[in-house]
Amino acid sequence: MRILISNDDGIFAEGIYILAKALQSVGEVIVAAPHTERSATGHAITIHHPLRVDKIKFFDTSIEAYSINGTPADCVKLAIEALLKDRKPDIVISGINNGPNLGTDVIYSGTVSAAVEAAIMDITSIAVSMGSTEITQYEDAAQFVCKIAEKIFYHQDLKDTIVNINYPTCSKEEIKGVKVTTLGVRKYENSFVERKDPRGNSYFWISGTVMDLQQNQNSDIIALQNNYISITPIHFDLTHFKTFEKIKEWDFQG
Amino acid sequence: MRILISNDDGIFAEGIYILAKALQSVGEVIVAAPHTERSATGHAITIHHPLRVDKIKFFDTSIEAYSINGTPADCVKLAIEALLKDRKPDIVISGINNGPNLGTDVIYSGTVSAAVEAAIMDITSIAVSMGSTEITQYEDAAQFVCKIAEKIFYHQDLKDTIVNINYPTCSKEEIKGVKVTTLGVRKYENSFVERKDPRGNSYFWISGTVMDLQQNQNSDIIALQNNYISITPIHFDLTHFKTFEKIKEWDFQG
Repeated sequence: MRILISNDDGIFAEGIYILAKALQSVGEVIVAAPHTERSATGHAITIHHPLRVDKIKFFDTSIEAYSINGTPADCVKLAIEALLKDRKPDIVISGINNGPNLGTDVIYSGTVSAAVEAAIMDITSIAVSMGSTEITQYEDAAQFVCKIAEKIFYHQDLKDTIVNINYPTCSKEEIKGVKVTTLGVRKYENSFVERKDPRGNSYFWISGTVMDLQQNQNSDIIALQNNYISITPIHFDLTHFKTFEKIKEWDFQG
Repeated sequence: MRILISNDDGIFAEGIYILAKALQSVGEVIVAAPHTERSATGHAITIHHPLRVDKIKFFDTSIEAYSINGTPADCVKLAIEALLKDRKPDIVISGINNGPNLGTDVIYSGTVSAAVEAAIMDITSIAVSMGSTEITQYEDAAQFVCKIAEKIFYHQDLKDTIVNINYPTCSKEEIKGVKVTTLGVRKYENSFVERKDPRGNSYFWISGTVMDLQQNQNSDIIALQNNYISITPIHFDLTHFKTFEKIKEWDFQG
């Protein structure tokens, strides 16, 4: 199994290092990731400047690794279409992200967008994130991803799917098991902080605290709160089929 | 009806000017848009630097307008949560984009992401794009959007929905009507061009031509090809319900 790894925390983040090392036990690993942190980039791609690729020494390993001055989606696109043109990966894995990617937030996530880009190119993918930023180690999550990667590779029937994993940061003994979940709802309040510069002009920081909203009991948010590993299958077809029939009934002549 | 308008071509693009002027006939118009072009930014938001807002004179109008050094999603978020905090818009409209936003491509689209951001904040929204970049005028599309905005405002039952419109660029007489559609599939081939700089080092441009793929007859792509105005309802819940049951059957102990 050939595995392409990316992330949005940058190629020198701890999460991608531990993930790549662990995955060597299940397949051939190639890393292509942003040269710096690119969080919250959503599904941006770079069209106004060209992309540079540097083949680098990846920490203390001999893993084939490319550092790219682009977004997570750029990295996956460029790796699959150009760098690995004649040896396409069987699976793409993005992470391990330093912090959760839950519910509505996945739409802003660089980690998830790297995985979505792979799915658009018909390669099944995994996005993996730690349930909070209070982590000192990623090993358990990386071992879990190895298991899931093998399951996906041998099942071979998850076309168009991204498997979004959020891994609890409690101790190993406290983890209750695995839950297959749907995306919950994440909204923020007080989402901007206004400040004044030394010349008295305003500027705004995006900020905000997560609102305590009613969640579906199947959701990723509830699973993680209860110390379950959350696995949400996601896709990239945004068609709103429920509304489709409603709009069809509108009179467009009037 | 209070209408917030944004785009990804930048606040001084022709499309947003004609859209904003036309919408004055149906409601109070406020513009908040990126100060420069921000195409293909996907759903990126800006967390590493603060946002600046300049209140500007909007062409030859007296429309209230804010130029912001952020992405389309930033502009909508900031306008709704900070600038218009006590007078939230009833509807958000993004466009008119200079070129189509069809099928899989909507996931890369700044135009669509501005509308998605509004829907996340429970405000129904419209994204509107011209079917090709060969346009000299946007007036017909703007008039059509006025009609749709009124329909949405009076129906009041399109929660969580973004109405994605692609408007044909044929002559008015050749337009066959309106089709409510699903998102088609857009994939690209030869998607990178490799060049050498004067020092002999490689760099890559994202490029590519659209592949001629089999499309669902209900798709936005087919509608536009046949000179129909395409209206696709979209949402932001990426849960892949079809795969959900399949993954639930996996044995996670093994």
